[in-house]
Amino acid sequence: MITKILVANRGEIACRVIRTARDLGFRTVAVYSDADRDAPHALLADEAVRLGPAPVAESYLDGDKILAACRLSGADAVHPGYGFLSENARFAELCADAGVTFIGPPADAIALMGSKRLSKLAMQDAEVPCIPGYEGEDQSDATLIAEAGRIGFPVMIKASAGGGGRGMRLAQGEAELAEQIKTARSEALNAFGSDELILEKALLKPRHIEIQVFADSHGSALYLGERDCSVQRRHQKVVEEAPSPFVDAELRERMGAAAVKAAQSCGYVGAGTVEFLVDQDKQFYFLEMNTRLQVEHPVTELVTGFDLVAWQIQVAAGSALPVTQEQVRIQGHAMEVRLYAEDPQQNFLPQTGRIQRWRPARNEGVRIDDGVKEGQTITPHYDPMLAKIIAWGADREEARRRLIRAVEDSLLFGVTGNQRFLANILKHPTFQRGEANTGFLANEFKDDPSLSPQTPADLVVALAALIFHHQSDAAHPHCNWRSAGYQSWPYELRSSDDIWELALEAQENGAFQVRLDERVLTLGLHSIEPEQALFECDGLRRRVRYLRQENRLSMHLDGCVYEFEDLTHAPAEAGDVAGDGSIRASMDGRIVDVLVEPGQQVEKGATLVVLEAMKMEHPLKADISGVVTEVKVKTGDQVRIRELLVTLSAD
Amino acid sequence: MITKILVANRGEIACRVIRTARDLGFRTVAVYSDADRDAPHALLADEAVRLGPAPVAESYLDGDKILAACRLSGADAVHPGYGFLSENARFAELCADAGVTFIGPPADAIALMGSKRLSKLAMQDAEVPCIPGYEGEDQSDATLIAEAGRIGFPVMIKASAGGGGRGMRLAQGEAELAEQIKTARSEALNAFGSDELILEKALLKPRHIEIQVFADSHGSALYLGERDCSVQRRHQKVVEEAPSPFVDAELRERMGAAAVKAAQSCGYVGAGTVEFLVDQDKQFYFLEMNTRLQVEHPVTELVTGFDLVAWQIQVAAGSALPVTQEQVRIQGHAMEVRLYAEDPQQNFLPQTGRIQRWRPARNEGVRIDDGVKEGQTITPHYDPMLAKIIAWGADREEARRRLIRAVEDSLLFGVTGNQRFLANILKHPTFQRGEANTGFLANEFKDDPSLSPQTPADLVVALAALIFHHQSDAAHPHCNWRSAGYQSWPYELRSSDDIWELALEAQENGAFQVRLDERVLTLGLHSIEPEQALFECDGLRRRVRYLRQENRLSMHLDGCVYEFEDLTHAPAEAGDVAGDGSIRASMDGRIVDVLVEPGQQVEKGATLVVLEAMKMEHPLKADISGVVTEVKVKTGDQVRIRELLVTLSAD
Repeated sequence: MITKILVANRGEIACRVIRTARDLGFRTVAVYSDADRDAPHALLADEAVRLGPAPVAESYLDGDKILAACRLSGADAVHPGYGFLSENARFAELCADAGVTFIGPPADAIALMGSKRLSKLAMQDAEVPCIPGYEGEDQSDATLIAEAGRIGFPVMIKASAGGGGRGMRLAQGEAELAEQIKTARSEALNAFGSDELILEKALLKPRHIEIQVFADSHGSALYLGERDCSVQRRHQKVVEEAPSPFVDAELRERMGAAAVKAAQSCGYVGAGTVEFLVDQDKQFYFLEMNTRLQVEHPVTELVTGFDLVAWQIQVAAGSALPVTQEQVRIQGHAMEVRLYAEDPQQNFLPQTGRIQRWRPARNEGVRIDDGVKEGQTITPHYDPMLAKIIAWGADREEARRRLIRAVEDSLLFGVTGNQRFLANILKHPTFQRGEANTGFLANEFKDDPSLSPQTPADLVVALAALIFHHQSDAAHPHCNWRSAGYQSWPYELRSSDDIWELALEAQENGAFQVRLDERVLTLGLHSIEPEQALFECDGLRRRVRYLRQENRLSMHLDGCVYEFEDLTHAPAEAGDVAGDGSIRASMDGRIVDVLVEPGQQVEKGATLVVLEAMKMEHPLKADISGVVTEVKVKTGDQVRIRELLVTLSAD
Repeated sequence: MITKILVANRGEIACRVIRTARDLGFRTVAVYSDADRDAPHALLADEAVRLGPAPVAESYLDGDKILAACRLSGADAVHPGYGFLSENARFAELCADAGVTFIGPPADAIALMGSKRLSKLAMQDAEVPCIPGYEGEDQSDATLIAEAGRIGFPVMIKASAGGGGRGMRLAQGEAELAEQIKTARSEALNAFGSDELILEKALLKPRHIEIQVFADSHGSALYLGERDCSVQRRHQKVVEEAPSPFVDAELRERMGAAAVKAAQSCGYVGAGTVEFLVDQDKQFYFLEMNTRLQVEHPVTELVTGFDLVAWQIQVAAGSALPVTQEQVRIQGHAMEVRLYAEDPQQNFLPQTGRIQRWRPARNEGVRIDDGVKEGQTITPHYDPMLAKIIAWGADREEARRRLIRAVEDSLLFGVTGNQRFLANILKHPTFQRGEANTGFLANEFKDDPSLSPQTPADLVVALAALIFHHQSDAAHPHCNWRSAGYQSWPYELRSSDDIWELALEAQENGAFQVRLDERVLTLGLHSIEPEQALFECDGLRRRVRYLRQENRLSMHLDGCVYEFEDLTHAPAEAGDVAGDGSIRASMDGRIVDVLVEPGQQVEKGATLVVLEAMKMEHPLKADISGVVTEVKVKTGDQVRIRELLVTLSAD
């Protein structure tokens, strides 16, 4: 009997499993590394046990520590989530030895499906369609090359123990084959500890379509429809949906039957996914079986109405499947995208940093499985997935519309994410028509604007200045420009490598005219609250959400995030940080006093000139100790912001 | 394809449409007049466009401005809500010309149904039962009088272009006919720009029962049951319910079939309502067809489970109706009332003012569609409906009970509303029995207490004093009576034109005795929070909700709202506002010093006498400059609150 479940994972999947376990009335235990001391999953469970330092080998991948945590907390079952120990047959055995229920399939099913070579042989025995290929024990170059010739090019070389695209190479012809085999072997050995390879005929523009299967310990097995995960970047799923726009009832039934046969042939129990490649003629081929809950399981939950984690726990506790195949109904359509801390403009480089704001959308039909919270720091130790955004609709178009809104309405400040990349995929005509195959992103999405650095539109820059300007009143009451009667203010803003100089001018009607080089925009500010503002431009009133911190501003507008720095009012004296001896005007104004002359020795912090601006005197001080080398202004001069006034040379 | 929907309306219906549009994943645009700059609908949408000044002709009724707002925002569809442009065939055409999808029926169906005369002729052709009458082109007095004689009295005279009871006159006999025709013509011309009239036989105590129909652009049409809207005040609906307690399955099917025929006969697409009068023999007669969403559509939504706005959008986008007639099921019962800013005690005069509190009830089975928020000012420019309160129940009695609670639990301070009127209708035996016909309010509800000024019960007055008393501690810490050890306090309170003098006396057990003339009540205060208090009287502990502002108090008790003014502690010195020279005791106390004598010249603000009360000395000052004419007290005198002490005469 299960009473207390330890979730041997982190992030969104740990949170998701804990929620269901708690909803079912079980007590829950989280485990955490030092990096995750305050992570949501560790706070969500009833109890939490520290595993060790941040690296996964010393924490989430250490089966002995997990079992020690079970003993410590009295947990009598372990849910492994996905990744980490979820497909580790040895860990499943250790659990059994320790008298702890492993919420997953039997160890030998894990072991069999963990080998691409052995699983394919088993599937061929069970008459599940497989891609023509070579899965032999003889791994010599000569044999592999000969087999590749027999199969016919293009040929895919895969690590037998592999997954997730690592150790996977495509050979277009015999010329490059030997080299690709060598590379694949080396990658496979590094990634999976085994250099065993298999060869497979490469299919032309296939779909990746997988079948969710479930089996209980009483011999029943069924399938819960398919998921289409064809939108992939380098073999990593980006968008998943159920049902597949490509699959009709007849194909679903054939694939479902094959998937159930695959599960039954290896004595499977619990949740599993049988992945297939489907060619344009609707022929399908076994790819691999994942012996765990998939990242993308929520789309199946939304169209079937079943809680797969609840089923996993019930089946692990010895219960029979709660429904029969005939009772499974697919209702509506669901779609999921994976929100990553990664920068599409830097070739998807994983991003780290502190999450300053995270406000997942709360729209109708939308489910967001997240595992992060505001204030949390994203470290390089773990997978950079922050959340899964999932939408259900009565039909595919409604699901797609809702998902686009949910992606664009979810606000993330502090860490760069892939929201725009995701939204643009969902809006792409090929995807909208339901025609994306596994080559879609590589072939049709290369020029998407989300992949290149973006320059904010004039409106966005003007808006940033307006927010900086308005906020200055509240943040710096001593510098209340508007009440001082001034009507025009210069700004210098930076966003990435771009710098803008602009000027705000208050209008009679309360609006502002913003000059950007030769261009002029008129912006009205309807209302400004601490986290959002309503502004108006060209008659259209819109909402911008923002976070102002010192001279930095994050803005969220129409699903895009912008970061600005206010150079005009950058903290003037950086304390003990030494400057470069170039003293510049901090704003437009008039020199009212010059206190030094060339050759004079000055200490850091000494006042050099006094600038009058905004009806106040601003002393400009030496940013280093040294000798005055040049004084470029005299009393009475009008100067522009950032104009060089005095240069110093260090002692 | 629709991607962005502009909602050409305001108030609750704009909010309601925006919510569904957003839930379906569409982007939304609001429009607003200057009076609605901060109105909920304008803040709820993703974007908002100003139309113009407050008057409807320059804002919500100006089709050109609506279409300009579509262009500006990129909206590709318009939802007109009800009222305003919703039944304007010309506007529907303009939308089509501009390439914007009008979410409503085709322009020619709107035009046909907009004419009472032409629509009735069309319905007669379609064999939909119509009230015997005259719909001819000949509009001469002679013909109308002759036709009235043929039809038989009583006869109803209606504006052909009319609606909402305007231009509608009842003639009991030939004697008054000519005069009534003249009045109806003039009203019709003023209200609708056309003086065309029709005549109809007036039915005796009919029910107003309407059928919700829906048609798609693929030729399918169905009905979603009926709504009974017989409770009307001057032809304006006050309570609506579905199903009708008067309609059985057979009548529903006959009326439904007739309504669908009416819709199909004019090529209808979208949501429409066919209104019928039903006589006591269950004969029904076509009244008119409303070619838009009705105010009362939520009762149909609650008993069918369908979202009619979602259907409107889907049908406008070219989709087929999502269900067939056979799949429509009426479940349970729903009832709606319209909360208006109007004063039933002043003949339902529309009320304006600032909404200080609006806390709609959040009870089970209750839906409140509102379009107002706290702090908003209700202006005279628009319909004074604030919200629709709707309840669902497994049966009619449960719906009615829930609706009464919801009306009584919803709290509105700052603007007078019709809550008590609504609750009393729902509680009336005739309504409870389901027997109200269109004459119910005029004939059976004339003497309802909600229609006359109400005098608060003693308990309510005592409670007001207790709240003022307790609140004084927090609001005036310098005047902390209880800690000062006093045990009795006088109060003078005003509510409308009534003034009460009463005295609170603290009891040993923490309760208070309240003396009101000869009457004595004992009130306990169990707890008091900033917005509500628990009090006890005669062993019954109850909750009162309140808002205290200065010397004003709004109280909400048992579904009634009371307003009080504390005259005892009215702001003492109004600064530079001159007084009348009558210096009165500010509270009960003892005179400890008299500083002036008759004939003495004093400046405004000079201290005249010193009163000791609440263990503190209170200087009473001259409220004008002038001469002391009389001094009515001497040191040591005990005085009562508001007793005259000194009189001054201005220079």
